[in-house]
Amino acid sequence: MRIAVLGTGAVGRTLAARTAALGHETRLGTRDVEASLASTQETRDGSGTLAQWHANHPDVRIATFADAVDGADLVLNGTNGEATLVVMESAGNLAGKVIVDISNPLDFSQGFPPTLFVSNDDSLAEQIQRHHPDAKVVKSLNTVTASVMADPQSVAGGDHSMFVAGDDADAKAAARALLEEFGWRDVMDLGDLKAARAMEMYLPLWLRLMGAVGSPSFNVKVVQ
Amino acid sequence: MRIAVLGTGAVGRTLAARTAALGHETRLGTRDVEASLASTQETRDGSGTLAQWHANHPDVRIATFADAVDGADLVLNGTNGEATLVVMESAGNLAGKVIVDISNPLDFSQGFPPTLFVSNDDSLAEQIQRHHPDAKVVKSLNTVTASVMADPQSVAGGDHSMFVAGDDADAKAAARALLEEFGWRDVMDLGDLKAARAMEMYLPLWLRLMGAVGSPSFNVKVVQ
Repeated sequence: MRIAVLGTGAVGRTLAARTAALGHETRLGTRDVEASLASTQETRDGSGTLAQWHANHPDVRIATFADAVDGADLVLNGTNGEATLVVMESAGNLAGKVIVDISNPLDFSQGFPPTLFVSNDDSLAEQIQRHHPDAKVVKSLNTVTASVMADPQSVAGGDHSMFVAGDDADAKAAARALLEEFGWRDVMDLGDLKAARAMEMYLPLWLRLMGAVGSPSFNVKVVQ
Repeated sequence: MRIAVLGTGAVGRTLAARTAALGHETRLGTRDVEASLASTQETRDGSGTLAQWHANHPDVRIATFADAVDGADLVLNGTNGEATLVVMESAGNLAGKVIVDISNPLDFSQGFPPTLFVSNDDSLAEQIQRHHPDAKVVKSLNTVTASVMADPQSVAGGDHSMFVAGDDADAKAAARALLEEFGWRDVMDLGDLKAARAMEMYLPLWLRLMGAVGSPSFNVKVVQ
């Protein structure tokens, strides 16, 4: 498969490295390739500058958002929630594309705990879908930290739960297939894209759990 | 202990039956005792009218909210979220009382999925605390269905997680002690009462999970 990963932060890098390692032709999308590769900014996950990261992952092509999306079978949105709609606007033709939206509408401008800049009767995933009605948006992976998204086995032997939500059954099946390649075994279908509200509104609890656990490397397992 | 349980719905009945069975002197609070005992309304949990339920639980005293709270060591708020502040207003002197708030601010007036009538930068638990600054509010138990609150062993052998949040350490310890009597083994302290926002904002996900699981009898276990 050809996979576009949007966003060069920890989420984008981690997912691009994983899809490339799985043998998928992977492009990592950014606004300005030259500026991103020249940037001295380091991500908090220890992978250094984008140029340093890229030296370790030469199989991933750094591309503009539009270049990354063009010809992609699957688009993973790993951009910051506040940038998401602008990035999608610049990503070219999204008609027919399966977009797995991983973003979270977190607003830290007032400190901790953060609020959500959209919630309750709307969600970021639904906003993407409304802006790009011909795309097929699936919400997933936003409920765990980047390393757990790409490698669920790193937590409790992989025995925990992931969710998908979306309006298109085939798109959800495509997202699920990639999740299973990542190693996810318990993928729960929460229904239509409105369920993205529920998945995004879980983030405040995720943040509190991170504080209680003392690490972002955790997840929840749904038990009966 | 003397325990006041507020609200005669499924949550109130289930918790009152449980605390009474544990040997605590239990009063179940309602607005109008005579009217409640004369009511023909049946709860959805199969326990019938309040009079029928009371015939099976004669050890629980049905009392007004103020009677129930007077002299109680612990108050469990099992009322409907929309009624909670009014009930608290009529519950008499709450100064110094530990109030375990189980309510959820669900608004089903626009159908499914419900929205929350308070969320994001405030919570129902914080509203109770502001209205009764001398009470000690602890948020807990709102993240599971009534039968699981009272009997965590009914799900996955009790191997799943419960949360507490509040500003008073002694009040949280008192709530935790009762949870442990119920059978809860993994009780996680999420911090100050602002964490009630996170616990209440989990409800939309809980509702979607109930749909996916096909039953309200489930919970999440936090795994590392």
